Amino acid sequence: MTAFIRPEELEVGYDIPAAIGMDESEIQTPCLILDLDALERNIKKMGDYAKAHGMRHRVHGKMHKSVDVARLQEKLGGAIGVCCQKPSEAEVFARAGIKDILVSNQVRGSLKIDRLAQLPKHGGRIIVCVDDIENVADLSAAAQKHGTELHCFVEIDCGAGRCGVNSTSEVVTIAQAIDAAPNLRFTGIQAYQGAMQHMTSYDERKAKLDAAIAMVQDAVDALKAVGLEPELVSGGGTGSYYFESNSGVYNELQCGSYAFMDADYGRILGKDGKRIDQGEWENALFILTNVMSHTKADKAICDAGLKAQSVDSGLPFIYGRDDVEYIKCSDEHGVISDPQGVLKVNDKLKLVPGHCDPTCNVHDWYVGVRNGKVEALWPVSARGKVF
Amino acid sequence: MTAFIRPEELEVGYDIPAAIGMDESEIQTPCLILDLDALERNIKKMGDYAKAHGMRHRVHGKMHKSVDVARLQEKLGGAIGVCCQKPSEAEVFARAGIKDILVSNQVRGSLKIDRLAQLPKHGGRIIVCVDDIENVADLSAAAQKHGTELHCFVEIDCGAGRCGVNSTSEVVTIAQAIDAAPNLRFTGIQAYQGAMQHMTSYDERKAKLDAAIAMVQDAVDALKAVGLEPELVSGGGTGSYYFESNSGVYNELQCGSYAFMDADYGRILGKDGKRIDQGEWENALFILTNVMSHTKADKAICDAGLKAQSVDSGLPFIYGRDDVEYIKCSDEHGVISDPQGVLKVNDKLKLVPGHCDPTCNVHDWYVGVRNGKVEALWPVSARGKVF
Repeated sequence: MTAFIRPEELEVGYDIPAAIGMDESEIQTPCLILDLDALERNIKKMGDYAKAHGMRHRVHGKMHKSVDVARLQEKLGGAIGVCCQKPSEAEVFARAGIKDILVSNQVRGSLKIDRLAQLPKHGGRIIVCVDDIENVADLSAAAQKHGTELHCFVEIDCGAGRCGVNSTSEVVTIAQAIDAAPNLRFTGIQAYQGAMQHMTSYDERKAKLDAAIAMVQDAVDALKAVGLEPELVSGGGTGSYYFESNSGVYNELQCGSYAFMDADYGRILGKDGKRIDQGEWENALFILTNVMSHTKADKAICDAGLKAQSVDSGLPFIYGRDDVEYIKCSDEHGVISDPQGVLKVNDKLKLVPGHCDPTCNVHDWYVGVRNGKVEALWPVSARGKVF
Repeated sequence: MTAFIRPEELEVGYDIPAAIGMDESEIQTPCLILDLDALERNIKKMGDYAKAHGMRHRVHGKMHKSVDVARLQEKLGGAIGVCCQKPSEAEVFARAGIKDILVSNQVRGSLKIDRLAQLPKHGGRIIVCVDDIENVADLSAAAQKHGTELHCFVEIDCGAGRCGVNSTSEVVTIAQAIDAAPNLRFTGIQAYQGAMQHMTSYDERKAKLDAAIAMVQDAVDALKAVGLEPELVSGGGTGSYYFESNSGVYNELQCGSYAFMDADYGRILGKDGKRIDQGEWENALFILTNVMSHTKADKAICDAGLKAQSVDSGLPFIYGRDDVEYIKCSDEHGVISDPQGVLKVNDKLKLVPGHCDPTCNVHDWYVGVRNGKVEALWPVSARGKVF
C-alpha cells in the first residue's frame, strides 16, 4: 500500500508479531523470525566469496522481498543491487533507493511495460529480460514515451524449461533488435539454470551447469563476432554459484536462498558430500510456532499451517529437535509427532520452512532476533507484489 | 493495517489489480477474480438449503477472509454470522460489525486471550473453542479483566485428529468448568470432521460422519443429563453438510468452500455420483493469468506461480479448456502444456486453484466481474491475520 502507516498505530498480535526490545518469548505466533547473527554471517560469507572470485553479486530480492535485507546485503555483502521477478517488486526496491535493479523475467502487457519504463526516473538502472523479438518494440515505445532508457538482457533457456530463447541465433537476433531500438540498451545475458539448483548430487548439478555454461559461451562468442559483447552475463543460485563463478564467462551472480536457507535447499550436498545447511550456510529463517493443543498423548498441534508457509517443496523440519517431528499441515494447524509426550501447550518451536521464497510471501513482517531480544521489525516490503 | 488508505492513492498494477468499471480484459495478472453471478447463486443455494433443513448457517470466514463476502452471505444466504480460526481474523470481522463470531479453534497464550476477551465490546457474541480445562481459567480471567462475556464451545475431535477432546467424559468435565467460571458461558459443541471432507466417495464420507454424529449424540445426551443442554451443536463443511443437516443433533453448519469452489473439492462425488463442481456448486473463484512467454512450440509460460496460489492440494486446472493443461508451478511461473500450439503471448487464462483457502490468503484483492466488466474490488480483509 502506498498510504502512510503511523508506527504507533500498529498493534502487536493484530498488525505486527512483536515490538522492538521485546523478549523473544513474547513474540506472537506464527511469524517469521530471523537469527540476525546467522543472517549476517551468511551475507558476509557470500559477499566475500563473490569478491574473491571477481563476481558482481546482484542478490535475489524475490526471495526475501525486503528492502531492509537488500540494504544489509549491500552493506555487509557488497551486493551491487538486486534482481526480482515482477515490475511491481522492482518498483518497491526503486522507490526505496536501490540503484541497480534487474527484472529477471519477461514483462508483457501494456500497463506493466508502461510502469516498468517509468522506473528509471527513480535514478537507477533498470534492466529487463527479453526472449521474444515482439517485446522489443513495446519496451522501446514505452521508454520513448517516458523519456527513459531501459537496459535489456536477452534471456537464454539454459535448461530450466521456462522462459528464454533456445538457440544462439535467436540471442543474436534479439540483441541486434535491442541495439537498434530507440531508448533500449543491450546490456547482457540472463542465463539462470533454475531446474538444477535443488538436485541433491553435486556432480549432477555440475553436469547441468557445464551444459548451461557451454550454451552461454557460444552465445557470448557469437555476440562478440557481431560487435555486441555483453557487459554482464548473469545467473547462478545457491546450488550453483561456484560453477558460474569459475566459468570464465559469467560475471554476475543472482543468489537468494543462501541468506535465509530452507529445508529443501538444506538437503542438497556440497562438493564435500555434506548437506549445505551443515557448514556451508546457516539456517537464519524460522517460522516461530506455538503448541496450542495436546489432547492426544503422542501428538501436539501447533499454530503454523498453510497460512504461515508454503509446503510445495515439502514440510518444515523442527530446528534443533530430534525428538519431535512436523508430520502434517492443514490450513491453520500443524500436527507434530511427539512419541514421548515431551511437548506442553504454549511450548514454542522453530520451524525451518520447506521453501523460503513462497513462505516469506505469506507474511507481512520479519522479526529480527539477537541474544534473546527483538532487535528489528522489518516489513516484507514487496509481499503480494505479483504484478 | 489499521492506517487509513485513501482510495485515490491505490495504483492499478502496483497496489490493486483493477479499478471498478474496467473491462475484464484490462485486469492486471495474476489476480483473483470472482464470477459474481456464480458466487451469488452458490450463496443463495446453500442459504436455501440451510433454511429448508432448519439449520443455522455460520459461514466459514477463514476461507475467504473477506468482510464483503461475509456480508453477501448474510444478505443472500441468510448467514447468522461467521466462524474463523484466529483471534486477529475475528477482530477484522468484529470491527466490521458482524455480530455472531465463532473462533472455531483453541486460543492459547496470554496476549491472544487478552485480545479475544475484548472483542465482545464491538457489540456481538464471541464464541471460542476449548479442549483443555487449563484454558478455562485463563479465558475467564481475561473476560473478568475486561468486563466481558465469552461464550465457549467444547471441541470434540470427531475424527480429524487435530484439536478437540476424545471422550464424552472430557466434554462434560470441561463444560461444567466453563459453566462454573465467571464471565464464561457454555454455549455448545464444536464438532467438525475435517479429515473426511475431501474423500472422493460419498459413502466413505457418510461412514466417517456417521461415526462423528454418534460421538456428538453421546456427548449431547450426557450434557443434558447434567443439566447443560447445548444451545448450539456446530460443524459441517462442503463435503458433509447434508449429513449434519439430517443428523437430528447438529443445528449449525460451518461451510466455506461451497461459495468459491476449488479443484480439490470439485473432484469429490455427490450422492448422484457426479463431481460436485458439475451441478452441485459452480466455480466462482479463478486466478486470472497471462501467457508471458512461448519460446517452446508445445509449452506456454504463464505468470501465476507459487506466489499466486497454494499447491498443497494439487495444481490448478484451466477452466473451460481441454486443449491446454497447467503442468508445473515455480515461484513466479506456471508451465502450460500446449501440444497444438494454440496459445499466444498475452492470452489470458482462468485457473481454478487446487485449494481456495490458502490461495486467497496470498492475495490482497478480489476482483468481482459480471458481464465482462469489473463490478467490485473487495479487499481480502483478514489476509495475513494469522495471530
